[in-house]
Amino acid sequence: MTDKKFHLLIETQARAGELITSHGTVPTPVFLPVGSQATVKTLTPDEISGIGYKMILANNYHLYLRPGIEVIKKLGGLHKFMSWEGAILTDSGGFQVFSLAPLRKVTDDGVMFRSHIDGSQHFLTPELAVEYQEALGSDVMMVLDECAPHDAGREKVAEAMHRTHRWAARCREAQKSENQSLYGIVQGGIYSDLRKQSVNFLKELDFEGYAIGGLSVGEPKDIMYSILAETAAQLPVEKPRYLMGVGSPEDIVEGVARGIDIFDCVLPTRVARNGALFTWNGRVNIRNAGYAQQTGPVMPGCGCYTCTHFSAAYLHHLFNAGELLAYRLATLHNLTFMHSLVKKVRESTIDGTFSGFYEEFLQNYRTTDEEIRLSQKQKWLKAREAKEKAE
Amino acid sequence: MTDKKFHLLIETQARAGELITSHGTVPTPVFLPVGSQATVKTLTPDEISGIGYKMILANNYHLYLRPGIEVIKKLGGLHKFMSWEGAILTDSGGFQVFSLAPLRKVTDDGVMFRSHIDGSQHFLTPELAVEYQEALGSDVMMVLDECAPHDAGREKVAEAMHRTHRWAARCREAQKSENQSLYGIVQGGIYSDLRKQSVNFLKELDFEGYAIGGLSVGEPKDIMYSILAETAAQLPVEKPRYLMGVGSPEDIVEGVARGIDIFDCVLPTRVARNGALFTWNGRVNIRNAGYAQQTGPVMPGCGCYTCTHFSAAYLHHLFNAGELLAYRLATLHNLTFMHSLVKKVRESTIDGTFSGFYEEFLQNYRTTDEEIRLSQKQKWLKAREAKEKAE
Repeated sequence: MTDKKFHLLIETQARAGELITSHGTVPTPVFLPVGSQATVKTLTPDEISGIGYKMILANNYHLYLRPGIEVIKKLGGLHKFMSWEGAILTDSGGFQVFSLAPLRKVTDDGVMFRSHIDGSQHFLTPELAVEYQEALGSDVMMVLDECAPHDAGREKVAEAMHRTHRWAARCREAQKSENQSLYGIVQGGIYSDLRKQSVNFLKELDFEGYAIGGLSVGEPKDIMYSILAETAAQLPVEKPRYLMGVGSPEDIVEGVARGIDIFDCVLPTRVARNGALFTWNGRVNIRNAGYAQQTGPVMPGCGCYTCTHFSAAYLHHLFNAGELLAYRLATLHNLTFMHSLVKKVRESTIDGTFSGFYEEFLQNYRTTDEEIRLSQKQKWLKAREAKEKAE
Repeated sequence: MTDKKFHLLIETQARAGELITSHGTVPTPVFLPVGSQATVKTLTPDEISGIGYKMILANNYHLYLRPGIEVIKKLGGLHKFMSWEGAILTDSGGFQVFSLAPLRKVTDDGVMFRSHIDGSQHFLTPELAVEYQEALGSDVMMVLDECAPHDAGREKVAEAMHRTHRWAARCREAQKSENQSLYGIVQGGIYSDLRKQSVNFLKELDFEGYAIGGLSVGEPKDIMYSILAETAAQLPVEKPRYLMGVGSPEDIVEGVARGIDIFDCVLPTRVARNGALFTWNGRVNIRNAGYAQQTGPVMPGCGCYTCTHFSAAYLHHLFNAGELLAYRLATLHNLTFMHSLVKKVRESTIDGTFSGFYEEFLQNYRTTDEEIRLSQKQKWLKAREAKEKAE
């Protein structure tokens, strides 16, 4: 069963492979555009597959609350509901319960939470998380996990990890569908020994793939990279490895260099809607006055719909005027950039030139300054916390 | 010159023709999607032409304020700026100065107004309105006109009409470009004799086309239709006739029945973004709970991208979740509906069955109740007025 779901083609530090799903074969490394609510924000399924994407991510938490699992089941499953013919990975909703829901109470049974939409009360268990994902019909399902805040302290992190393990075993047990994979999620925060313990526990359950959760949740990047490298190195070579919620261009390159196969992140689509566009030299903000009269495209040489049809000046105008087309064009560009990046990463891995690509990319790509990045993230986390308390 | 710009193919009550422009031949009757800010809201130019549209409307007032005429000129003109290869009609901005600008002072010279965006002061004259539209490079330009409120009283309506006439003559004089048409605008409110006077004055200036302005600005529909019929009947048979800012499905059918060739209106795109979708039986609101589990498309048999790819339930979900894709899919549907409607109108005019089509359409199409419609319009006008006073 394992061999049918993932073919590992090559492994240096970086790996290249193929994920076999009921909805097509997905070359890895792969970046999954995020479509939590059964839509990759602003784009049609045709546009997503037109860029070259063969797999996207959706979210069990969002879809359970709205429109409801039963509705999607009645409509023929998630693929049909959203008219997407490629593969879908669904997150179990664990992370969202712990990050979005305004109130929650965790016991070993499961988690009681209130909807962030209407305050209604719900109870999610490992068994239900699998049942719902099976009803959605996603190709890859995730176990229900508990992700402790990065600054929770060792004791709480360990507690959440142990619960995640017990829940993982129950999810494995609950799995009925044969053509849907189930991935375990490694927790353990920034503690190497906990991560090791988590890997060892989950390996015993022989999941079709392994995710690394609880990274990029506020910890410094160097710590993240080091925990990532250690953890990935302990995972079974022959199974796909998924780094959850991580996906800035530099994180993809760093992640692949540490043996990761699958990434997902709202960043490329979210920052696009703020006017931040990826280029090989780093992010640029199209709202800047300097673009007001630029006749060339945002990124010369880019083959995306946006860059081949419109000047930077036009895109600047659309953002300036608050036109909805702006968000589409920026999203198209960023997702095309991510797809090209991952393609280059894969090709260089296969032909043995990944190290060169890695160095060249990081030399040219100006990342957001670490201090600014952390303070932005802290600000965002605090704003969310304040919002939760207010509710 | 006249014959080259418009071929009249047939005339019963309804007319069918062809508008000849430097950017292609446009079959008439025609409905122009509105792209005031150089974008038909939510859609790409490819999608607009994919539906079958060959001509759109843009606005001199909006583009003058943002991004500025000079910027668009530098970028190669409006067609290139927005990547639209079809024809473009630009309104002069007269109507917008009188409806959007928070402060304005009209003299015979022109109109001084403040930007609704940043309050900056500007002066627009008939000569400048033409100069700007020539710089934009639109295929059909409109004269600068003054549109009095529908309840302004005869004296004010007459005064605005006479100023519109003097301005029309100056626009005609100012016109330099040979491959851009200039249309005169008939004013005169709901007063038959003023309308007649206006037609006669403008006919003398021998415009390439004639627009009827100042209708559908708050007056009852029956008065609008009667003024429309009288006015259209007096316009030169061999010139295209454009009913400005009017374009609900029923108004198109009624307008064609009274000899109109060209329509534009924000209605189909604006109501789409509120979830109102056109069907042959009238408008439906996809937000209604009844659609939550409807497996079929919004309008069975519809060939638009939305109806051929998605269930009504999915569209309902997108609106419910506030997803941007909702606005696109609804806009695509409504613009496809408008295009089909106009096509049916034209075909039935050519094969002599328009009267039958007219009756059948109006029998099936449930229009918004007149009383509700008028009170909505009054509410909207008052809200705008209050907003203006507050600024």
